[in-house]
Amino acid sequence: MDLNKVDLSKVSTPALVLDLNKVEANTARLHAHLASLNTPLRPHLKTCKSDKVADIMLSGQPGGATVSTLAEAEYFFSHGITDLIYAIAIAPGKLDNIVELMERGADMKLLLDSLETAKIVAREGEARNCVFKVLVEVDTDGHRAGLKPDDDVLIEIGALLTASKGTQLCGVLTHAGSSYGCQDTDAIADMAEQERSRIVRAAENLRAAGLTCEMVSLGSTPTAHFGRSLDGVTEVRAGVFVFQDLFQVSLGVCGYDDMALAVLAEIIGRDPETGRVFIDAGALALSKDRSTEKGHEDLGYGLVTPLGVAPSQGSAIVKQVFQEHGVVSARTENADMSQYKIGDRVLVWPNHACMTAAAHGFYHVMRGTESVGIWERVNGWKL
Amino acid sequence: MDLNKVDLSKVSTPALVLDLNKVEANTARLHAHLASLNTPLRPHLKTCKSDKVADIMLSGQPGGATVSTLAEAEYFFSHGITDLIYAIAIAPGKLDNIVELMERGADMKLLLDSLETAKIVAREGEARNCVFKVLVEVDTDGHRAGLKPDDDVLIEIGALLTASKGTQLCGVLTHAGSSYGCQDTDAIADMAEQERSRIVRAAENLRAAGLTCEMVSLGSTPTAHFGRSLDGVTEVRAGVFVFQDLFQVSLGVCGYDDMALAVLAEIIGRDPETGRVFIDAGALALSKDRSTEKGHEDLGYGLVTPLGVAPSQGSAIVKQVFQEHGVVSARTENADMSQYKIGDRVLVWPNHACMTAAAHGFYHVMRGTESVGIWERVNGWKL
Repeated sequence: MDLNKVDLSKVSTPALVLDLNKVEANTARLHAHLASLNTPLRPHLKTCKSDKVADIMLSGQPGGATVSTLAEAEYFFSHGITDLIYAIAIAPGKLDNIVELMERGADMKLLLDSLETAKIVAREGEARNCVFKVLVEVDTDGHRAGLKPDDDVLIEIGALLTASKGTQLCGVLTHAGSSYGCQDTDAIADMAEQERSRIVRAAENLRAAGLTCEMVSLGSTPTAHFGRSLDGVTEVRAGVFVFQDLFQVSLGVCGYDDMALAVLAEIIGRDPETGRVFIDAGALALSKDRSTEKGHEDLGYGLVTPLGVAPSQGSAIVKQVFQEHGVVSARTENADMSQYKIGDRVLVWPNHACMTAAAHGFYHVMRGTESVGIWERVNGWKL
Repeated sequence: MDLNKVDLSKVSTPALVLDLNKVEANTARLHAHLASLNTPLRPHLKTCKSDKVADIMLSGQPGGATVSTLAEAEYFFSHGITDLIYAIAIAPGKLDNIVELMERGADMKLLLDSLETAKIVAREGEARNCVFKVLVEVDTDGHRAGLKPDDDVLIEIGALLTASKGTQLCGVLTHAGSSYGCQDTDAIADMAEQERSRIVRAAENLRAAGLTCEMVSLGSTPTAHFGRSLDGVTEVRAGVFVFQDLFQVSLGVCGYDDMALAVLAEIIGRDPETGRVFIDAGALALSKDRSTEKGHEDLGYGLVTPLGVAPSQGSAIVKQVFQEHGVVSARTENADMSQYKIGDRVLVWPNHACMTAAAHGFYHVMRGTESVGIWERVNGWKL
């Protein structure tokens, strides 16, 4: 296949298709918003898992990034990104790999939220004669993990990390994942302010205890777009914004036609009685993510459009998935399903870009309808 | 890493772990059952996606296999498996790749269930001066795709495929996916008989119309184990039986301790207030499959056991997943969550082995607690 002449009518299906114009526009929008609040972006690369997309996200920013796996850390480090937060509470079993990355020159920052882990990391740093840089995870919304901003354990951990020769306290980090449950953008803006004020309070609590807290890192794609102030915050993390998806549309973060990522599929069957159409993209190619299930409109496993039709005009959805089959039905009663013929190509716009992209090893990158080439992804985990 | 000395306390997490003793026992059980009904197995390789697992499944069988992607077809063909059914209704856009495989010596059999596709395949075969071998998909349970056994279109398609120089009618194929909705093994046995009798009727209808119908292929993991007769059937297809999973347990197909596949994860955090435990395996490493949701017991995103504890003794489940986090809770009220310490390793037994395995590039293969090595998987799709 000539990498520079990808014709979507010829690409093997299912395949991941990325519109670079949308990627750039989504990135420019967030960069501009954060610039207006005088705060840089540390992009989360768990969505794109691609060095070329990362380059776009990092353009004009300080250069630090966020990763969710050590496979991503190694890949992006090998592509020249040295300042990396591994933003999952560190598993003690991963410290060997972290040290290896540090020895090769990576500026790794680890995350933890318990005294138990802090003690292990400090002890391991001392034993290995190295200094692990650490951020303490703060819970600003009761969403997942982290310590409450006023929890005394936060100070205990900060003191321990400061006192140990094996660790360095770099700051605090939070992710307001509850923003994914907000009903509108006003609610997201309120959540952003809660995220900001609480992470800043955590930082102030550490400082009041005589500890340094240089980094104050927060972010989620919804809050990153709608925060009204970032006072006291040193960086914002977000990742899925670069592609957007149906879940972000349902939250009001973006419009349908801002979505940059879709799965190309071919129609392989039709059921004339029910109007259902079968495609060769199923549970693996689309993922079983059902993020829109509880939103304004349940879009099944994705919104379906013929090639050349904007997602805002999408009139069909993937209603059911099997491993390699998708079953497409009309989105609304009067939608015309007879337009879909066997052998036609369609695009499926995903609920959740991170989940859908992860099954695919490559992007077919387009600029509008012109092919740019094939870009790789770093999926999975270290062997 | 020394491939022959995999220590589960050292393996990078998350990772896929496979117990070869269970793989062999699961395979021997199905082989024995089918032998008692004088019918061979054509294993479906979409679950294992591994040549070494395929060798076990094919042991003592005729050698034909079933695949769900062209990536699998190419991989298994390159490993010496030549007789392949690509068991998804053929997308016209895939015929180039099929021809390429045929020219290299693969005995490819295609599937279709519409006159529309039959005409395309016949025309393409004639235009390319080749003969596409075709099975017609029959719907024996209203589950997904296929023609009803008594549908006149079945005969029309059979006649068209027989008359065309570009196609050869090989037979009929069905998959009673509705067996996944059965409440007990008696119901599965009844479904198996329905699957058998209806696919045999479809074959007889073709023969009564003067057409040949050599292959009569059926199968699903539940029906494959509980059919009482396979009279008139030439082969059985099944795939997930080789690993089994929580969904098969919930259907009564196997017991908990027959499961061969699990995800190794490490504990990265604890919430002392709620007893919840965080692991480094989330939505990607486990998949978002929720097959047990509507069964006897909702096991969340998987059953959790400490290393060395049999799944039948599992007292915790993954209740919630994020991209790289899993949140583990007690399965029953009196379960002791304090046993889980940060840095401990656990196994997560999946709802649906096909979906969970697909995110992982490799198996860490064990025989009980002894390491056998690392086996690759062929994930994703052709570029």
